[in-house]
Parts: sequence; structure tokens; C-alpha cells
Amino acid sequence: MIVIFSICLWQDGARAQNHPSDSLMLRAIFTEALSNGECHENLRVLCKEIGHRLSGSPQMDEAIAWGKKTLDGYLPDSSWLQAVQVPRWTRGDREKGGFTIGNDWHRVNVSALGGSIGTDGVLMAPVLEVKRIEDLDTMARERIEGRIVFFNRPMDPVLINTGAAYGGAYDQRSRGASAAAQYGGVAALVRSLTHALDTFPHTGGMGYEPGVPKIPAAAISTVHAQKLKEALAIYGDELTFVLEQNCRTHDDVMQANVIAELRGSTHPDEYIVVGGHLDSWDIGEGAHDDGAGIVQSIEVLRIFKALGYQPKHTLRVVLYVNEENGNRGGETYAEEARKKGERHLAAIESDSGGFSPRGFSTEADDERFEVFKSWFELFEPYSIHQARRGWSGVDIRPLKDDYVSLFGLIPDPQRYFDYHHSARDVWENVNKRELELGAAALASLVYMIDQTRLRRE
Amino acid sequence: MIVIFSICLWQDGARAQNHPSDSLMLRAIFTEALSNGECHENLRVLCKEIGHRLSGSPQMDEAIAWGKKTLDGYLPDSSWLQAVQVPRWTRGDREKGGFTIGNDWHRVNVSALGGSIGTDGVLMAPVLEVKRIEDLDTMARERIEGRIVFFNRPMDPVLINTGAAYGGAYDQRSRGASAAAQYGGVAALVRSLTHALDTFPHTGGMGYEPGVPKIPAAAISTVHAQKLKEALAIYGDELTFVLEQNCRTHDDVMQANVIAELRGSTHPDEYIVVGGHLDSWDIGEGAHDDGAGIVQSIEVLRIFKALGYQPKHTLRVVLYVNEENGNRGGETYAEEARKKGERHLAAIESDSGGFSPRGFSTEADDERFEVFKSWFELFEPYSIHQARRGWSGVDIRPLKDDYVSLFGLIPDPQRYFDYHHSARDVWENVNKRELELGAAALASLVYMIDQTRLRRE
Repeated sequence: MIVIFSICLWQDGARAQNHPSDSLMLRAIFTEALSNGECHENLRVLCKEIGHRLSGSPQMDEAIAWGKKTLDGYLPDSSWLQAVQVPRWTRGDREKGGFTIGNDWHRVNVSALGGSIGTDGVLMAPVLEVKRIEDLDTMARERIEGRIVFFNRPMDPVLINTGAAYGGAYDQRSRGASAAAQYGGVAALVRSLTHALDTFPHTGGMGYEPGVPKIPAAAISTVHAQKLKEALAIYGDELTFVLEQNCRTHDDVMQANVIAELRGSTHPDEYIVVGGHLDSWDIGEGAHDDGAGIVQSIEVLRIFKALGYQPKHTLRVVLYVNEENGNRGGETYAEEARKKGERHLAAIESDSGGFSPRGFSTEADDERFEVFKSWFELFEPYSIHQARRGWSGVDIRPLKDDYVSLFGLIPDPQRYFDYHHSARDVWENVNKRELELGAAALASLVYMIDQTRLRRE
Repeated sequence: MIVIFSICLWQDGARAQNHPSDSLMLRAIFTEALSNGECHENLRVLCKEIGHRLSGSPQMDEAIAWGKKTLDGYLPDSSWLQAVQVPRWTRGDREKGGFTIGNDWHRVNVSALGGSIGTDGVLMAPVLEVKRIEDLDTMARERIEGRIVFFNRPMDPVLINTGAAYGGAYDQRSRGASAAAQYGGVAALVRSLTHALDTFPHTGGMGYEPGVPKIPAAAISTVHAQKLKEALAIYGDELTFVLEQNCRTHDDVMQANVIAELRGSTHPDEYIVVGGHLDSWDIGEGAHDDGAGIVQSIEVLRIFKALGYQPKHTLRVVLYVNEENGNRGGETYAEEARKKGERHLAAIESDSGGFSPRGFSTEADDERFEVFKSWFELFEPYSIHQARRGWSGVDIRPLKDDYVSLFGLIPDPQRYFDYHHSARDVWENVNKRELELGAAALASLVYMIDQTRLRRE
């Protein structure tokens, strides 16, 4: 079932939508977030008492219980768990990388990519470095066969939007293994997707193409990628790479999205969703990705309760259970909403880190985009200025078919990939004020959507 | 001598000033900064090989030599040292704080304020907590006399501009001691000027009012300020504070501003100045304050040389020697410029940390402000959007009399006071990309000023 909404503009144009009381409400929201904010402390508990929490893991069960309890502490009108069948992949207890040149051993920091198979013992092979997946298509098969293919294209540093730089290097991680296996490659090593030159491998999801042999895949730190490249230039096939990992995929398990509601006073059957994903990779603490989005979404509820603001439409805070390796949380949520014919006005996601908010992206249609842009005079005092068309978030994307307006928080993107999917993504690297400002930005957007009468036709 | 400039607007209005080639040049500047940037590595050397460098210290001498050598490495048309007489204050080797309640000892992290006298042995006294300096004026003298006055007003967390919050709490540090001494207070303890709740004292400059007895003054960490407040509420005068510090002021010494020039091709006798201050407090490494501004200013020169851009007006990079406790660097520079009748078009300062650039402030007049604002369409692709009237920088302020247009880089301000004047202001807390983007923003502003024909009447 497809439910279509369209926006009801005021007769005197978009700008007139901003009521004088709006700026007072935004000031109240920011004041509450910065004076009495609890999201930074909530994030500490999530990161330090639970830690990383890959879908399917026992830590994820703990995180679900924590999420429900934390939301309930702010007295929503209702809350529940929505069952989701999630994948389960474990890293195992052996993870080792390095290379030998003659009798010399050079340790290399590696991290199995999520979804990868293990090496079934120790894998040893010479290395072929490539910059682009397409380069493999023009090479003689014997140059690839029996080798570990080392994808070493850095993220483009000149792009101001680091997400675009990530997107431009992402194919190496997501489909490098199958591309290499197609020509007889025995494993894939992928330069970590980060701008930082450091010794931390950054993991992340990968997938296997059907019909192509599965080979192990691992991320390698950028410092070690550099060293490997230099050694290869000198020693070529005299260099043997040694990789060992015993990660594996298990049967799916049942876990859950966590949902809490503030019931709409005027349109209880129309929903505004705000959320992030509760799962994280199994390295670090998932502080920016996406503990930040989780505690900020919870903070929206806390702020509204603290200010005594009962929304006109029903506010739903959703903590999605499985974004990193499957998006089953987002898909299940959208599927059930569709089944029940729930009318969603808007869905908002925070999944780009707990940095100073700079704006929002939206996948809304033209008419709504104009309305959305008109709100930015209200955001200006908070130094939030970017009204961008484009990507909103993985978890909420499955709602898109329903013509729901999708929004993504845009925090300052410069530091995100320093931490992303690595051991550095810990609570200490999240600044309290930046996190709180992001929460206030989310609450403000929810408020504006709630006020501006997005209506069903 | 007063030299007056005024702006020559193009006939068809300010917006037409932006030539199509401007956006190409800005893109080239940002690409150079982000691809081949050297400011982060330069900052590492300054922070790790020299470290903190208070005016008058031997480290400051090293920093001056390093600054000259680093600038010369980028082949300016000329460079020299400009002698400046600077104050010299040393922390000494004894610094201790704590309080006793009966036989219990509670350690407190303190840091003498710059310019403070020592305690001449161990000072022990009961404590009076006040929120505002003015509160002292309405109190009976006997409540103050013989006590350590503890100024405990936090920085206002709800202000988005953290500099304004700093300004709102600053009087406690700058003149708290004399205010207390006036009524017989024996020392001043000042809550650290930071939003962070942590155990690091944040030092900074203070001054004594003439004719009022000098008493010792120290910053106390925010965590310990909180503890002291709680203990005072319970124990009152049963609590004795113990303070010891043997800091002192010495005779002035001669040090120097470091200056390098790229000679203007068309108007060699008109100057655009870009700079920061080379000195720092004697705690941490002065990484954000103001190592960042130093290496960014040097980077402007490097970028122009790398791009083969010879400015029309003479570009001067100035590394001021003494901002933190005296501003003798800025004053000497302005004084000599005035003596020589040097025509300054503009002076730009970076002294608000090496964070993502968000805009510029300016003290330019109305006409120039309109021109300045028209440039921001060019900055938009770099997510730089704030064109603000207001404070530019301490070092360049003495040039203001000459009707020079003053500009200050505005980086994202949320994290600055976490580090400011404390042991946390170290290289590790400066992000490479954020630092580079700030350098590119400075270079872009210099370029726009250079191109837009600011002319002498």
C-alpha cells in the first residue's frame, strides 16, 4: 500500500510559515539541551557499560534492554520492542596480518571485514596492489591468480563532504573480494576507509557476489597500507603476505528495534520518526557510529517532556537494531508500517556522528524542500545553515516508497572517518556540546515538521 | 599619522566583484591545502619539539628561530625579526592546592594565573565563594577579610558562541584578585574558564589594579570547583584552603615578532597582513592557542608559492611574539607600521583554534562589510557561511586606528575552551583536515582582499 502526502503551504508563501513563537521554541530547545542535557551521560553508559554491539551479539541484547529502559525513564506514552530477525557474524579469536621478506617479519594491523569468511588456517600468498576494481578487468588472469589483491585507493582528500569521499572509495570494501575472486585472487586486503594516516584498521560491511568463490577480506590500516605499498615496489613477489582470521557467519537470531512514542494531540495517527541505529561494529564502542544518533534521538523525547511539549502528530523514537550489516531494522520497521497502513509524515535519522550540526539533508520533494529551506532563518542563530538535497540515512530509506519526507542530520563531517568503524570510535572522542547541539537540532526539526501542518491529502 | 583608505566598489554593485576565476582560485587553494598541506606537520614540530612557549622563556627563543626557519623554507621574498620588549613571568617549581577538613586532606588541581604573585610559603585560609565580583561590594568587609575569595560562576552553557560565554565569565580571572584584595581577601581562586567538567586547571592572564594590595591568584579545575563548593556548603569555615605557588614576574626581555613577505606585484607598498601569535601559556603545547594560527598563516605563504600566485599587494605573514600576557607583539608591529607610514589594507588573525572554519568576523566599515558579504557565495562550497561583524583578534587590534580592515577567522567554537590554556591543548587534539581547511579559508580571504582592489583614496 502506498500512502501519499503533500504539503499544505500557507497562502502567503513559505516564509510566513515561521511563526514568531517558533524562534522562542527553538531557543527553549537549545537551552534545555545545553543546560540539562543527558545525552552525553547516556552515551557514556552505552559505550562504557555495554561497549560495541554488533547485531546478533549478546552486547546487542544488553543494548536493546538499555534502550528500552532509558526511553522508559523519560516517560513516553508507550514503548515496545519490535522483533527483527538479524544476521550474526563473529570475528572469532584469531586475527593476524603481516608480511615476510626473506626471514624478516613485518606486522600489519588488519581487521576482518564484516561478513567475510575466515582463512581456514594461515593463508600465505604474494600481493597484487591495485587502485581500482576496474583495473582487474584489463589484467592478464595470471597476474591475479593465487595472489592477495590489495585495494589501495585512498579516500579523496579534496572533497569537503567526506561522505562523498567515502562513497568514492567504498567499492573496494564492499565488492573488492568478489572482484578479486573472479580472476583467481585468494584474499582481498582493503586500505582502511579513513582520511587519517594511522595504525588503526577500519572494518565495515562487505558482500559476496553470487556464483563467485568466497575469499577472505580484511581492512588494513593506512600506515600499514603505505608500508606494504613501499615494500611491494621494492620486493614484488619476494614479499609474502600472511593473513589469518577465523571470523564466520552464523544462523540469524531474533533481536528487536526499540520504539517509544509521544502520542500526537491532534493527529495521533500521523507519525514523525526520529532515530539512529543501536548496533555498531565490533571494534571500539560505536560512539559516533551510531551511539550519538541513538542518544540524540532519545534526547528529543527528553527535551519535549522537559518542556511540556506534546506534539500534534505522534513522535516515534526508533532505535534500529541492524544497520551495519543488513539494514534489517529499517526494513522491518518500514514493512510493518506499510502493513498497518501507518501514515508517516517524516522520518529523520542521525547517523553521521556527534559533531557540531551544520544542517540537514532531505529527500523530500520540491514543494517540501522549499518549505524546509524557509525554516533555516530559524536555525541561523545556532550556526546551522546547510539545507541540502540528498541522502538521509540507511535505516529510514526503506520508508521512502511511501513518500515520507526523509531527513538526515548533517554534522560537521571532517573528523568522522578518523573514528568510523575503528578502535578510535570511543566516548572520549565525542564532545558534549557538539553532541547536545545535534540533539537540539533534531528536536527543532521535529518541532518544525510538527508545526507546519504536513497533511495527508 | 593616520592613513585612511576607502573601498572602490565596482559600478554594478558588490556582487559583480566575484570574477569567475575567483571560484577556480579558491578551489585551487583548498585542493592544495588538503592534498599537500604541511601545516599539521609544522604544528607537530612546534608542539612536540619545542612545546609551550610563554613570552620571555627560552622556548620562545626556540620558537622564534623555528618560525623564521620554517617561513624561509617556503622562499618568501624577504623575512626578518622585529625586536619586541616582552614581559617575563615564570610559574616557578612549587604549585599546590587543596583543602583540609579536620584531619582530612583533599587535593585540588590549581594553576597560578599568569602575572600572579606567589604565596611566599604556604597560604592557609578559609574560603568565601562568590558568583559575581559585584557581590563583594554589598558584603560586610569582615566576611571577606582574611579569606580566599573563590569566584565560581560557570561559563554560560546556552550561548552558541562560546567566545561570548568566555567573555561573560572572564572578569573573574582578569580582575578577581584586586576585587578581593580591596576588601581584605588574601588570595583569589577562579573557576577555570571552560565548559568542560574535568580535572584540568585552565590558566590565563590577570592584572592587578594600581593602589590595591597584590594577592596570589590561581585557577581551579571545574571538577574541583564543584567539590570545593559542595564541601563549603557543609563545612563552611571548618574548611581551610591551602595554596602554595612561587610564580613571579621578572624584568622584561627582548624577543621578536617574525615577519615574512611576498612582495606585491602591483601595489608593493600596500600590505595585507595575516598572522597569529607564537607565544602560548606555559601549560600544554599551545596547539590550538595559537599554534594553529601560526602554522595556518605560514601555510598561506606556502599555498601561494605552490600555486605560483604572486599577490598584487604585499602579503605579510606575522608571527606575533606576545599575545597572552601583554600584546607587546601586536602593539610593536602597529607602532612601527605607523612610524614608517606603511599602508595596510587589511589585517587577518587566526586565534580561535584549529577547528573547521565557519566564517570570518570583521571590524571593517559598512561599505567594506557589504563587499565582504558578497564574497560568501564563493565560500559556500567549503561550508563557510558566517559573515559576522565583531572582534577580529588581539594581535591585530592595535592596527585599528589606521582604518585597516580587520578580520578574524571563525572556526567552529564548541571545543575550543575544552583545551584553552590547559594541559589538554596539545597537538593530538588538532584534526589535520580541520586545520588545513582553516588555512585554506585564510588564504582564500587574502586572495579576495588582494583581488578586489581595496584602494587608497
